[in-house]
Amino acid sequence: MAVETPILDGVNTPDDLKGMPLERLRLLADDVRAETIDAVSTTGGHLGAGLGVVELTVALHHVFDTPKDVLIWDVGHQCYPHKILTGRRDRIRTLRQGGGLSGFTKRSESEYDPFGAAHASTSISAALGFTVARDLKSEDQNVIAVIGDGSMSAGMAYEAMNNAGAMAKKMVVILNDNDMSIAPPVGAMSHYFAKLVSSRGYRSFRKMGKAVAKAVGLEKTIRKAEEYAHGMAVGGTLFEEMGFYYVGPIDGHDLEALTQVLKNVKEFDRGPVLVHVVTQKGKGYAPAEASDDKYHGVSKFNVITGEQKKSAGGPPSYTKVFAQSLIKEARRDERICAVTAAMPGGTGLDLFGEAFPERTFDVGIAEQHAVTFAGGLAAAGMKPFAAIYSTFLQRGYDQVVHDVAIQKLPVRFAIDRAGLVGADGATHAGSFDIGYLGALPGFVLMAAADEAELARMVATSVEIDDRPSGFRYPRGSGIGLDIPEIAAPLEIGKGRIVREGTQIALVSLGGRLQEALKAADELAARGLSTTVADARFAKPLDEDLLTRLAREHEVVITIEEGARGGFGAFVLHFYAERGALDQGLKIRTMTLPDVFQDQDTPERMYDEAGLNAPHIVACALDALGRNEEAAAVIGAAQ
Amino acid sequence: MAVETPILDGVNTPDDLKGMPLERLRLLADDVRAETIDAVSTTGGHLGAGLGVVELTVALHHVFDTPKDVLIWDVGHQCYPHKILTGRRDRIRTLRQGGGLSGFTKRSESEYDPFGAAHASTSISAALGFTVARDLKSEDQNVIAVIGDGSMSAGMAYEAMNNAGAMAKKMVVILNDNDMSIAPPVGAMSHYFAKLVSSRGYRSFRKMGKAVAKAVGLEKTIRKAEEYAHGMAVGGTLFEEMGFYYVGPIDGHDLEALTQVLKNVKEFDRGPVLVHVVTQKGKGYAPAEASDDKYHGVSKFNVITGEQKKSAGGPPSYTKVFAQSLIKEARRDERICAVTAAMPGGTGLDLFGEAFPERTFDVGIAEQHAVTFAGGLAAAGMKPFAAIYSTFLQRGYDQVVHDVAIQKLPVRFAIDRAGLVGADGATHAGSFDIGYLGALPGFVLMAAADEAELARMVATSVEIDDRPSGFRYPRGSGIGLDIPEIAAPLEIGKGRIVREGTQIALVSLGGRLQEALKAADELAARGLSTTVADARFAKPLDEDLLTRLAREHEVVITIEEGARGGFGAFVLHFYAERGALDQGLKIRTMTLPDVFQDQDTPERMYDEAGLNAPHIVACALDALGRNEEAAAVIGAAQ
Repeated sequence: MAVETPILDGVNTPDDLKGMPLERLRLLADDVRAETIDAVSTTGGHLGAGLGVVELTVALHHVFDTPKDVLIWDVGHQCYPHKILTGRRDRIRTLRQGGGLSGFTKRSESEYDPFGAAHASTSISAALGFTVARDLKSEDQNVIAVIGDGSMSAGMAYEAMNNAGAMAKKMVVILNDNDMSIAPPVGAMSHYFAKLVSSRGYRSFRKMGKAVAKAVGLEKTIRKAEEYAHGMAVGGTLFEEMGFYYVGPIDGHDLEALTQVLKNVKEFDRGPVLVHVVTQKGKGYAPAEASDDKYHGVSKFNVITGEQKKSAGGPPSYTKVFAQSLIKEARRDERICAVTAAMPGGTGLDLFGEAFPERTFDVGIAEQHAVTFAGGLAAAGMKPFAAIYSTFLQRGYDQVVHDVAIQKLPVRFAIDRAGLVGADGATHAGSFDIGYLGALPGFVLMAAADEAELARMVATSVEIDDRPSGFRYPRGSGIGLDIPEIAAPLEIGKGRIVREGTQIALVSLGGRLQEALKAADELAARGLSTTVADARFAKPLDEDLLTRLAREHEVVITIEEGARGGFGAFVLHFYAERGALDQGLKIRTMTLPDVFQDQDTPERMYDEAGLNAPHIVACALDALGRNEEAAAVIGAAQ
Repeated sequence: MAVETPILDGVNTPDDLKGMPLERLRLLADDVRAETIDAVSTTGGHLGAGLGVVELTVALHHVFDTPKDVLIWDVGHQCYPHKILTGRRDRIRTLRQGGGLSGFTKRSESEYDPFGAAHASTSISAALGFTVARDLKSEDQNVIAVIGDGSMSAGMAYEAMNNAGAMAKKMVVILNDNDMSIAPPVGAMSHYFAKLVSSRGYRSFRKMGKAVAKAVGLEKTIRKAEEYAHGMAVGGTLFEEMGFYYVGPIDGHDLEALTQVLKNVKEFDRGPVLVHVVTQKGKGYAPAEASDDKYHGVSKFNVITGEQKKSAGGPPSYTKVFAQSLIKEARRDERICAVTAAMPGGTGLDLFGEAFPERTFDVGIAEQHAVTFAGGLAAAGMKPFAAIYSTFLQRGYDQVVHDVAIQKLPVRFAIDRAGLVGADGATHAGSFDIGYLGALPGFVLMAAADEAELARMVATSVEIDDRPSGFRYPRGSGIGLDIPEIAAPLEIGKGRIVREGTQIALVSLGGRLQEALKAADELAARGLSTTVADARFAKPLDEDLLTRLAREHEVVITIEEGARGGFGAFVLHFYAERGALDQGLKIRTMTLPDVFQDQDTPERMYDEAGLNAPHIVACALDALGRNEEAAAVIGAAQ
């Protein structure tokens, strides 16, 4: 181990923090911070958020009695210090690796993770569930949710506050206000938080130091809250209006203040409390503090210099190709605009925003609103592109159905991170969009086989102005193709033959096309003539192409990076309807498996999923009854 | 026409309201109210909400220049007066009928409906889209969203306010505060609205009458808002904290106050304005005012007495069977609790709540929170049933995936209104849940063929305590079966044979089983021996049953009330994987068609969908190559 952490070395479970004096807690926090930095320098992962909550994590485990007390971290990407303190330090350098610790909280990993996460803004809802269950069972544990200011822009957090405030049960919500989610904050609430901090004397509190800690405790705040509740028509903080007692702002790096306030809060039993804690993302690590994104997510890095390991170069990411393609199109069509839900960097819309700031809209962590806002733009004659990861688009599904698809509005969905995503694991996999979007009448759904195709799909979506469309593309880099200056739109509902053969037809939708081509080579080496088609469209299907493939081949195999009920299912429905299966067709559908796959390298995940060349070869051989040969292919590949 | 409406008779478009003097506007409002009552008395539909906004509707069309000005009604069930005034009076007695006017706003119906609705809380997002587009195009129309206080409990509305408040563009949000959604309001926000009304002098304002109207106009409010924004740390209304200028509360039945305030608001161009209008649901119709639900949704009724046409009797609804079954189970298992998102009556949880008030949770229009709250309950050892209509569960899809399914939490989803729903039309159809839930690893998904099956599925879900489960059931009444006092749980993943045959196998999932049995009779009459199976489970599939059916029959037909990519798709995937199609199987999948079906009677909608006995017979005959016979069956049925 690269760092000396004498205090931390003596801590095995949070019980060891219980009687620890303040001075020692401070040293422990230093150790936890050093250990976090060192661990992430070897694994990569989320760093800035964890560094911001080191003192808060120490204080929570000092004051509360976890795991009996229920501590729920929102998102969970800030939980590395929590993992270090809750019996997982010995595995902390396996973070986000195959077989290692998750990069988020996870129920199956530890009893100290009572409710896992990864998507934002779920913690208050879950905490309220625990709270209600506690009271129904007449138990007495504390329930604490820790949620960032960015997560507060999501409607789900508001729904939970609205419900919890009215229920008036004892629970604690800690607002971890670091004035950042991944990107700088957007929305009216972030201004509001800033106003609270600047006006409530946080600065003077910090100046005055420890003596104030008790005075800023709960007693005063309660009196204040009651004044508001009973005396004044309006007033108090927004949280008080919603039925919470508000405490804060507290300096989130002052362990004395934190522990004192949390002890007060722990004793308070007259309703839900919101503790407003101000922290600094990346705190205590100079390179993180100095960077724009506060080392939100990093690759492996040099602890001394902070220098992150560069990626090996190679072709640009699909994300970047999408952004550059959209910029080109927007130069020619001023109706094009773009919407992101708090992911300008992740979606590439930071680049689009530099080129067209007035046509770029970051609406916050608010996918429901993002989709319908885009619907409004489309209804008013714009050409909106809603760039949302596949997994997050699940948040706006009803809006896609109700506001966009039923009204046939031409919103364009740019669906990044479709398929498996590697280190982020099951919670971030884009597994279901082909099914849940392909089921919608009138929807045009594409999947890009490579970056040149992606550019063409952007151009195609620009032209589709009478109905909704979407195009999905995987995480990671393209295959190194040149992108034409002007990408030609595709004919809607037409796939392409990439390789002509006679016996086996591989019909790929999306990014597995290269694997299908590799498989075709391997099958050719075994004397099997193989056609490879790129379907391009999950909807509408290329019915002519499918009919021809079925007629001219003994085996047809569909391949997609998505769950059952998607492209392969639509192909099967079509064949069944046309009677193409009546006389026999050796058809197989290769999809993601019916399990939530844990994080690993993308290559290993695709192998586990059975979606690489050897598995495609084996599937074809199996269909032909050459089962032993198929098993040998899989065996040889492993 | 049963009512005399002399002023309304002279109104053809909203233009006719423009110069109309106040006294005449009042008379017009009376006419519109009378016409609304009379029309709904002949069609049934949503009445209370429309009656509450008669004056507001008249004032809006008097002050604003629709359709150039963009007027968006949230939900749209309150839009009958709006339809009467915007060129659709001649068809108002076709509301919710096949081929008639929609019961909601609808883009394809009128240029006065710029953004349709039916689900709640979308209007601010859509309005912001129109607002941004207007500014990008340098146009100058006004954009107005009218949203109820109930809709404000949804996170989506908050997301939109958070975004709109920060953008600071000219737009108007009218909060129609009638202290009701469908059920009485829940949540902290409803307390807050009540506090605003009781404290801001609404009562004295009403007492003082017209002289006050101008004083309560915008000037004063703006000064007030600016005081808050610049002077005080906290204060102002919650809306002001979110970047809106707040005006109100206004008496929503005082046309003079309304028109004056709206004129002021129309001129205001310094940012978004929220106008808080207090209305009375069911206003002006004594039977509605006197009833608990304010005639939210009614059947046909007698205008004089208010007496609603009773349904013909017959078997209890699926909703009621669900509620009674859950009550029985909850008597035996105190861990059972129930969650609804503002639909206690619609889901039957009003009955459950009478029996177990402390185990019943109405969280407001907040499906995202509802699902994760239930997840928290499950993680804490309770047995939560989340009762949510299929169409509304789309709002909580990510939470089902991320918080429930990935964590294998035993939340039970009671999915009402699965399939076609009749008069509410496409926006309320439960078309997609089989696909979007069946795609989730580990999920147990059932569909009830009749009410006795539903009772057994409730019992089955009680027992499934190690993973998520759901059971879907249609709108309407069961088939008249007795419900056993103690319903026996089903074996997971096992279907049942209802009728034995040898040539054709009909595999039904859900409520079309009776049609399948009718079809089997008809096929028998044609000499075709037909097996009818009730699959019961869309996931996991009964693989043994499916294998046997494929082996022993020439034709296999799946039948479900859901879109492509659902049960039929899962069956096809299974058959393909097992090579069951290699040698030929005449398999067909009957699903909902790939269109959004407009409202009609359920019978006609199922006929249009091709999901009744004649279509099943025809499908079987077609598969056997007896195409002319098949066509004749369809022809004879129509």
